[in-house]
Parts: sequence; C-alpha cells; structure tokens
Amino acid sequence: MEKLDKKVKKAVPINEVTQCEATGRMLEKARRDGVVVAFDRAAEMKPCPIGAESACCKMCYMGPCRLNARDPYGKVGVCGATIDTIQSRNLARMVASGSAAHNDHGMAVLELFKGVANGTITDYTIKDPYKLDALCAELELDVDGMTVQEKALALADELEKTYTQTEGEIPFARRVPEKTLETWRKLDIVPRGAMIEVLGIMSRTHMGCDQHYENITKAISKAALADGWGGSMVATELGDIMFGTPSPVQADVNFGVLKEDHVNVIVHGHEPNLFESMLVSVSDPSLVKIAREKGAKGINLVGMCCSGAEMMSRHGVPHAGNFMSTEPVLVTGAVDAMAVDIQCIQQGLVKTAECYKTHLITTNPRCHIEGARHIEFDEHVPRECTDEIVTLAIARFADRGVDVEIPKIVNQGIHGFSHEYINYMLGGSFRSSYAPLNDNIINGRIRGVAGVVGCVNPRVKQDWVHVELVKELIKNDVLVIQTGCSQIALAKAGLTVPEAAVLAGPGLREVCEAVGMPPVLGLGSCVDNTRILIAATAMVNQGGLGDSIADLPVAGAAPEWMSEKAVAIGQYFVASGVFTVFGVGFPTVKDTKFHDLLFGGLENQGLGKWGVTKDPYEMAAMMLAHIDKKRKELGIDKARERVLTDMASRRELA
Amino acid sequence: MEKLDKKVKKAVPINEVTQCEATGRMLEKARRDGVVVAFDRAAEMKPCPIGAESACCKMCYMGPCRLNARDPYGKVGVCGATIDTIQSRNLARMVASGSAAHNDHGMAVLELFKGVANGTITDYTIKDPYKLDALCAELELDVDGMTVQEKALALADELEKTYTQTEGEIPFARRVPEKTLETWRKLDIVPRGAMIEVLGIMSRTHMGCDQHYENITKAISKAALADGWGGSMVATELGDIMFGTPSPVQADVNFGVLKEDHVNVIVHGHEPNLFESMLVSVSDPSLVKIAREKGAKGINLVGMCCSGAEMMSRHGVPHAGNFMSTEPVLVTGAVDAMAVDIQCIQQGLVKTAECYKTHLITTNPRCHIEGARHIEFDEHVPRECTDEIVTLAIARFADRGVDVEIPKIVNQGIHGFSHEYINYMLGGSFRSSYAPLNDNIINGRIRGVAGVVGCVNPRVKQDWVHVELVKELIKNDVLVIQTGCSQIALAKAGLTVPEAAVLAGPGLREVCEAVGMPPVLGLGSCVDNTRILIAATAMVNQGGLGDSIADLPVAGAAPEWMSEKAVAIGQYFVASGVFTVFGVGFPTVKDTKFHDLLFGGLENQGLGKWGVTKDPYEMAAMMLAHIDKKRKELGIDKARERVLTDMASRRELA
Repeated sequence: MEKLDKKVKKAVPINEVTQCEATGRMLEKARRDGVVVAFDRAAEMKPCPIGAESACCKMCYMGPCRLNARDPYGKVGVCGATIDTIQSRNLARMVASGSAAHNDHGMAVLELFKGVANGTITDYTIKDPYKLDALCAELELDVDGMTVQEKALALADELEKTYTQTEGEIPFARRVPEKTLETWRKLDIVPRGAMIEVLGIMSRTHMGCDQHYENITKAISKAALADGWGGSMVATELGDIMFGTPSPVQADVNFGVLKEDHVNVIVHGHEPNLFESMLVSVSDPSLVKIAREKGAKGINLVGMCCSGAEMMSRHGVPHAGNFMSTEPVLVTGAVDAMAVDIQCIQQGLVKTAECYKTHLITTNPRCHIEGARHIEFDEHVPRECTDEIVTLAIARFADRGVDVEIPKIVNQGIHGFSHEYINYMLGGSFRSSYAPLNDNIINGRIRGVAGVVGCVNPRVKQDWVHVELVKELIKNDVLVIQTGCSQIALAKAGLTVPEAAVLAGPGLREVCEAVGMPPVLGLGSCVDNTRILIAATAMVNQGGLGDSIADLPVAGAAPEWMSEKAVAIGQYFVASGVFTVFGVGFPTVKDTKFHDLLFGGLENQGLGKWGVTKDPYEMAAMMLAHIDKKRKELGIDKARERVLTDMASRRELA
Repeated sequence: MEKLDKKVKKAVPINEVTQCEATGRMLEKARRDGVVVAFDRAAEMKPCPIGAESACCKMCYMGPCRLNARDPYGKVGVCGATIDTIQSRNLARMVASGSAAHNDHGMAVLELFKGVANGTITDYTIKDPYKLDALCAELELDVDGMTVQEKALALADELEKTYTQTEGEIPFARRVPEKTLETWRKLDIVPRGAMIEVLGIMSRTHMGCDQHYENITKAISKAALADGWGGSMVATELGDIMFGTPSPVQADVNFGVLKEDHVNVIVHGHEPNLFESMLVSVSDPSLVKIAREKGAKGINLVGMCCSGAEMMSRHGVPHAGNFMSTEPVLVTGAVDAMAVDIQCIQQGLVKTAECYKTHLITTNPRCHIEGARHIEFDEHVPRECTDEIVTLAIARFADRGVDVEIPKIVNQGIHGFSHEYINYMLGGSFRSSYAPLNDNIINGRIRGVAGVVGCVNPRVKQDWVHVELVKELIKNDVLVIQTGCSQIALAKAGLTVPEAAVLAGPGLREVCEAVGMPPVLGLGSCVDNTRILIAATAMVNQGGLGDSIADLPVAGAAPEWMSEKAVAIGQYFVASGVFTVFGVGFPTVKDTKFHDLLFGGLENQGLGKWGVTKDPYEMAAMMLAHIDKKRKELGIDKARERVLTDMASRRELA
C-alpha cells in the first residue's frame, strides 16, 4: 500500500474535510491503512493562485504568461493580451470542454437510440412510447401512421441536428420561452449545433484571434446553450424514452448499501447504457448461481456519481455516495468491482483499488486509465462486458484478502422527480399542470424555486455547503430541486423525505404536506439539469410569472463545484436567464471588465448573471434577495422577514 | 504614446532579439518613441516554468495543480492525475485549438466556394477549372457532363464531409499513401471528421475522463490529421481553384515595400477572401483617384503573415514581413491602415496602432479586438468592407500626423511553388513527374527534402534559427521547402533566389542550376503546409523511395514556433510519418512516458517522431542523421561527410 508522507500525516482533521460520516470513517481507516486519497492530496497541493484566478495564459509558446491578479491592468501578455482577453478565453475553453463532455455523452445516447430504432441494437428497447409521441409532437414531426420504430428514427434524425448542424438553430430552441429566445436572437447566441460551437471556441481562442471579451462571451453562451438545450437535453429525453421516465421511487443512499455477504459491484460514471446492462447481468440466474456457489448471498449492484443518480431516479438502484466518496468507498474493502465509464473518474482510484484488491475496470473507448483493466463496452453485445465484470467481481469476493469494514449508514429517501412527474404530482391525473406551483408562488406560500446542483470538491467540506444552503432555502419557503452529487449530499442529510417538510418555512411546509412531497426534489444526474430548464419553461408557459425565464423568481447554485461541466451548466443557466451562484471560488479576477460582464452586465442584456461566495448562508441570502427582486418586479412581493435556521430547527431534524 | 517602463528600458540589445535589420531599426525607433512592443514584453515576462513544461493542470477547480518537472513522478494532481495524463491532456487541447483554427478557416473557404458554385457569391470565381477537374477525378466523383458550377457543387458536397462527418474516414484519406493509411487504420487514428475529433478531444480531456496518455495520443493524432489532411488541405485546394494555383512569381519582401508617397494598406491574417477583395479595392479607379487627389501617388497593398504569404505566392503581392514584424512595421508611421482577419493578430497592435495613428481594423466575426475598429467582411458584398478600409487609409494618408521612416530594404525572391508546379518544373510540360526528384535523391545529388516552416517567436532571435538551419541543410544537399513566417525569414535572408544555389552543396547546386530554381522553395501560408504532404505523397507514389511517407528521406522543422497551430501541424507531420523538430522548447517534461512516446515510441508504431532543440546546427544535424538513416534503410546511402557552413560561404552570399 502507498504510504502517507509526512505532509499528509499533518492533514487537517477529518471532520473539517467532510460532513459525510461514512466517508469520514473510511478516511480514518485509510489513514490507518496508510492509503492516500484525494482529500489528502488536496491538503498537500496548494492551488496555483495565478491559475485559480485565471490570470495566466498558456495559449501560445511565447508564454505561458502570468498577469497580476492584484493589479490586473498593470500588465499584459507578450502578445498584448489583456486580463479580459485571457480570462474570457480561459473560461471559453472550460465551457467548451464541459459542453463537449455532455454533447459527447448525448451523441452516444443518440447512437444507442438509433440502434434501438433501426433494430441493430436489441438489448435495449423503447420503454416510454408516450414520451416518444410527445416529443415528436412538440418538434412538429410528421409521424402520422408510423410505427414506434419509425417514429424513433424520425426523432433521431431531427435530434441529430443538435450535434451536426452548422447553421440555423438547434432543434430544442423551439422549446425555449418565446421572449427568452427573442433575447438570444437579438444577442446572436442561439446555438447552431454543438460541434460547430465547440470547434468555434477552440478556433477563436487560438492565439491572436478573438480578443474582445464581449465577443468571446457570446461564443461562451452559444457553446453552453448547445449543452443545456442541446446535448444534455437530448441525453435526458432519449434516456427517458429508452429506459423510462422517472417517477418517485424510494431508494437507499450511503455506504451502508454495500453488503459484506454479497458480491458488491459499483458502477461509477455518467452513461446509462453500461449501468442498464449491468442491472441485467447482476440478475442473471447463472451469474447469481455462481456467486452463491462462491459463498455470496447474492450480487449487490450499487451506483455512485451521476449514472448512479440516474439509475436511482429511474429504478431505485441504491447509491453509495457522490464524487468525493468514490475513493473512500473502496477503503471499505467490500467493493469487488468498480466499473467506470466517462467523466469524474479520479485517476487516484487506480492506486486505491490496488490497495484494496478491487477490480477497477474502464469500459469506454474515450476513457482509458493507466493501470486499470479495460473491458470495452459495446452496446451491440453489452452483456459481454458486464458479465465479464460481474465474473471478475465474483472471483474477487471468493478471495477478498482484505478486511471488510462497512459503515452501517443508510439514508432512505424519495428520488426520481422528472418534469413530467412534477406536472402530474401538482395537478393530478386529470388536470396535470404547473398551475398549482405558479399559484402557490404567486400567493406566496412558495417564495421561489432554487436549483441546487453540482459537484463536491475537497477544497470545501464535503456536502456541508450543499446541506446548509438547502436548509436555509427551504426554511425560507424556497422549493429546492436537485441533481447530481448535490442531490446525494442532501439525501445523506435526510432531506429527500416528505418528513423533511418540518424544516421548511410554513408556506412551503403546507404545500409539501398537502402534496406529500419532500421540500427537496431530486431530478437525477448532472445531465438531468435540463429537467430544470424544462420545468422553468413550464412555469413561464403556465403564465403569471412573467414572459421569460429571466422573469421567474428562481435562482441556481453549485455550492461545491469543481468540473468544467459545472461551468458549462452554470453558463447555460445564466444565459437562460437564471441567477447562478457558485461556491468554492470563480476563475476570474474581480473588478475586471469580463468579471463585471458575467456578474452583472449579462443581466442587463436580459439574461441571468453569476454570483460567487464560499459561505452557504451568504449564498442563500443572495439567492433570496434575487428571488425577492423578481417577485417585486412581478408585483407579487409582500413583506417577509428572512428566517434563519436556528438550533431548535437543526435539532428538529436530528 | 505609451511610455516604456524601467524594466523595458533595460531590455536586451536589439541585435540579440532579431536578425531582421528593418525590424531592428524600427525597434530602435520604437524605443526612441517610447513605444512598447512584443519584444519588450517578452523580455519583461518570464515564461511560467511549470506551464512551459506542461506540468500544471487547470482542467478542474480542485486545482490548478502543479507538479514538479524535476521529479515528475513524485507528485500527482488532486484527482490523482499523473504527469503523463496532465501533459497529454494539455497537448491534446493545444492540438484541438490548432486543428480547430485551421478547420474553421477551411470551413470558411468551403462556404465561399459553395457560394461561388451556387451563384450567391459573385465577387469571386473559379480561376482554375483544371484543378477542379483533377480533384473531382481524384475523389472519384461522377461529374461527367456537368458544368463547372455543378462540378464545384459536387466537390463542395464531398469535401464538406471533412468537417461534418461523424463516422467513416475524411475524404482526403483517399490521397494518403496506401501503407501509411494502413498504419493509421491499424492504430485507429484515421480522422472521421474535424468537428467530431475536436469535440472528442475536449470531451475526453475533461476531468476524470481519458487518463491514459497512449489513448489520448491517438486522439491527438486524429485531430491533427483532421487538420493536415482535412481542413487545411481543403482550404489550400479550394483556394487554388478559386484564386489560381500558384506558379513561380517574383515578389518583393521586407519593410522597403512600403512607399512613403503612397497610401499604404496592409492586410495581416490568414484568410484569402479579405485579401483578394482588397486587391480589387486598391485598384478601383475611383478610389485611386481619391488617393491621388489627396496627394498620394497611388495605393500600395502589402501583405504580412500568412494571408500575405498566400497572396505573394499567387499574385506576387509584396510582403512586409512575418509575425514578429507586425508591430514594428507600424512604427514606420507609413501604414495608413492595417486590416486583419483571424489568427496571430497580436492584441498589442491596438496600442501600437494608436501611437502611430494607424487604422487597425478587424473584419471577421470570430475576431474582434477591444480597441480596434470593426468593419465586418461579408463575402456577398466584400467591397463594402474593403472599400471602406481603403477610404479610411486614404484619409489617414492625407493627415498622417506622424513622422514616417521606412527602412529601405527590399529582398527580391521567387515564390509560389505549388505541388503542381514542382511536378511540372522537374519533369517539364510533356513528362511532368516527380521522377527527376526521386532520381536525384536516389543518385544522391539531393540527400533528402526538408520542410522548414512555422512561426517566429520573441523567445529566440527572430529569423536567425530559420536562416541558420536552412543554410546548414542546403549546404548538405537537402532541398528545403517552406511556408509561412519561415519562408519570409528566408526571403529576407536572400535564399529564395536561384542564385542562392551557390550556398548549396554540389549535388543540390547542380540540380538547382539545371532547373533554374532556388534551393529553397516557398509554398505559401502555414495552411499550405498541406502542399508538403501532397508532395511527399507524390514522392512515395513515384516509387523508389519506399512505400510510406515514413520511409522517405525527409524531415521537418519549426525552428521558432509559438502557436497551437504549429503543434497541430507538427503532430500531423509526425503522424504522417515525418521526423519533426521544434525549436524554442517543447511543452513536455523529459524522461516521462508521454514524452518518450512522442519522441520515439510513435516511430516504432510506423509513424514519425518529434525532436526538439533550440540550436539550429544541432537541429540540422538531427535532421541529416534522420535523412541518412532513411537513406540507409532504403539502400541508397553512400558515405558522405557533413559539411558545415563556413565563413567563406557566408561571405559568398553577402
């Protein structure tokens, strides 16, 4: 096992790095075992202060140039690039990568869908033909008299433009509220297609090309919108059609979902296809039989990270934890195989897996990891890959050779709130509608809606910022919708159950209790953030809350963000009209023109704007202030005091 | 005027930063005038030592992480990313940007070509229908009985796949020598389409995705080949069809092409369409009349950088100098307008132009520069933009208000050696062929062929590395072909004239004198590096020098590179089979696995490999050793001593 070095031994106390008790216990064990994980590496690795503020430029070999964030206009790069050029180019490439990641994922989902539609892929099917019909109708495709397969092909053809089209507007632009779309057209930020927008950014950010932060910001918005209303939305919608549109389901979360006496298989990553196939493999009688012969009581499939959140939402598959728990979960010694696909797979998993003799298996052609075993997943013969992984896991179970110690913590919660279900839940079968939501916002029971999403990041205490923020919001009658690692943080804190309504303010509590819903609605993976866009659009279309998404009393936050995907998501919310607050920090230098454009100027153009603070209480205050401002603009404001979560209500939950 | 600060006043002596006398004189003047240019900024700005070796990672906000280039395996990033993951991802993004830049340019040329073909664009035309026919035939398009316009549309449809296709092989893969293509297929590096390869890199380099340098290197090769055999090649070929295939033309180079008594208009950038239209505008009798009325003897159009090199090759338009001379040329005070389009336009030009009251005008939607005037170029009405620029230039001529001081240095040379012309030149009209070239290589008169290309960079003495390297190469009987800023450096050194054959070794000299050609053949802009690929392919197809590009006794160099495009070009040469040496430095850490793969491993896979050295003599030695190795493998080696350029031969040129 890799030994901790001296620096790491002096690492900060575990209760300062995570609020997740199970993760904390495994960090203690890791330290006993002499195993280094990302929390230790973060404590040891100071972030580059210049890079963190995006004051350096590596776009050519006359540099890399470093400007001075304390005196941002005191220096320029060798080529003369100003701090605004440098920052905006850097942010553009972050968004390009984030958007590319989601679009690449979305293209893979589309390919799978095409294969299902044309019959070349037979292990998956169309589970929600109603949603298929609804989408065809919404996109005004002429599918009269077509079979399900033919409709699927027609839809695939139309949605392929999301990626390949080089002029015009992406298909789902038709979904955007009219006034929002009008603003985009005026600003020339309607995306053409995802590939051209990503290539466009990589071209214009080349040395000596686009050197006006305002022009670059338009390209950033385009590439980001090509994610949210493009690739990610296609991934979510086609995923629903193939695997089923989520509706509320009870699911267990936390390390306690691992079972010492079972073969434990974790799937970690972002694409549903691997996971869906694994779900079939672990139920295969012949594999279960082998597992039993080896002394296991069965095969236990568990998710982590985003595909885990997606599978939990759709099928109630248990979820072990979010991104920062992916190394600690291996420290339990109970994981017989961890199969990964793409994105947010820490390379550090290789060593940790080695230490605990867990099989770490990469499966996707776009993601090999040096030191991990690669078993390529082919959706034409998906079981070849997943059966082999299960077989490896069974063999490792039979000969674990390491101590197993599973923190027996399990949090039950309700997950799987799709836009469609919210519609149904609020209005009921016969009058499904967003009217009740809008009415309750207008009458003030619900003050507004907040999307709290995004990663966890070892630079802040794991889960803590998410949980504190959400408690503040619901206490102040803000309905919270969630995705990804944030949703898992709240599930572990016990807020995804209807009973958590006691922590909500009186208005929200009344609504939750009437409907029987939690004050925190989990929507799925980070790709499923598009469900929030669709819900916001439904609120606009329902009427009474303004004409554009920017008019709504809503706000967004990614309190513990870390990935470039998070930046792309943040920007597509901002460009859609949402005030979006990031925690941890933001890669710009304050009091520069580019920073001011993002944090204010865009709002004046009719879009949303960015905010940043590390402090969850300040974050809540910023979001509430924005929601109240929008209520006032809508003429639905009434005087209300902000309520702070006091010790009494904290105890109430415990 | 912006004043030099103290640090810049202590800047290194001018004869240490440039070999270009005219540029040096203007640097002196700039210092007298108190104007800061890139040479000064480079002297003041130390490159970040960690970034320069690509040992830092900004791919997520758990970082930025900095590894130790002195102990590359002693540390990993917070996520566990190793030095090999970090370096390969960084290089991948450089190549993605370089390839995107060229492909974006190529897509613009294709759009123009489509407009010309379908008649919506009328200011440009098809100047080389023979080349159109040849390309249609080569791509096996069925164009029998079609009009020129119909053929052009058919060709455009086919070549559009270069960008938009998401599976299969790009159209010009059909051009690649069979054995080279076979190697690519075996390695799975044949590009599908440029957009998907660029998006693919931005996706797989996202945090937690591809973390195996070998897999990432394949993606790098694909994106690079999608440049060289993709977007760049399309740009060159369609440019030839629309604007004429170059054949040798005498052209003047250096600051002396500016005329004090003329309205001087410089076009600087990369796209031919703006420049072609400007050529029409400056000849417009009504504009010339106005200029004369304002006291000018005429309007003088001059190129700089790559579109300048392209126009010089095609039409003999004079060229003022390469990238590092673009600020100094403004110091002459003689430039009435500088119109720029995309790429390698230093933001510092804004301030320099302000100091000398030159109109700096951006024209391309992808390249705005804060502080520059933007007059958008629309190829449907191109003259609207270029006439307006000329009008501004005339007004500025009439009221220059600054001292004019033009170094009276002009270098005449022969440029415009397309692949087609080389074919004709060597074989003659009736037996055009590469046989004479191959024969002369086989018989040893010509030892090999070197492509010397790429940028200039203030981190090394401008032009000097290019010139010294090329002298070494020709002295040793290596025929040199050139593009871009390198070609301009050699033109200024007087090596692009047939008389420069006296500097060549006896074998090469004999061939040059027999044909009447210079030992250094200028092929055009950096996009025209594809002409080198085509020439290399012709050499393979001619026979006698092996079956693949990797078998040829050829080598490449970018002695003063600085841009990400240069890295993409370097990689497409390496992946095509060429040993390619970079000067200045290389963004990798030596003795790491990724570095070793690039600098050796790829060659073992049947491709080329990278080399790096700052020293032109060592660079020549490395290239000669490689050429000799290839000669030996081909069985055409004979013992020959390396000849050094001595003082006598240096004097001979002067």
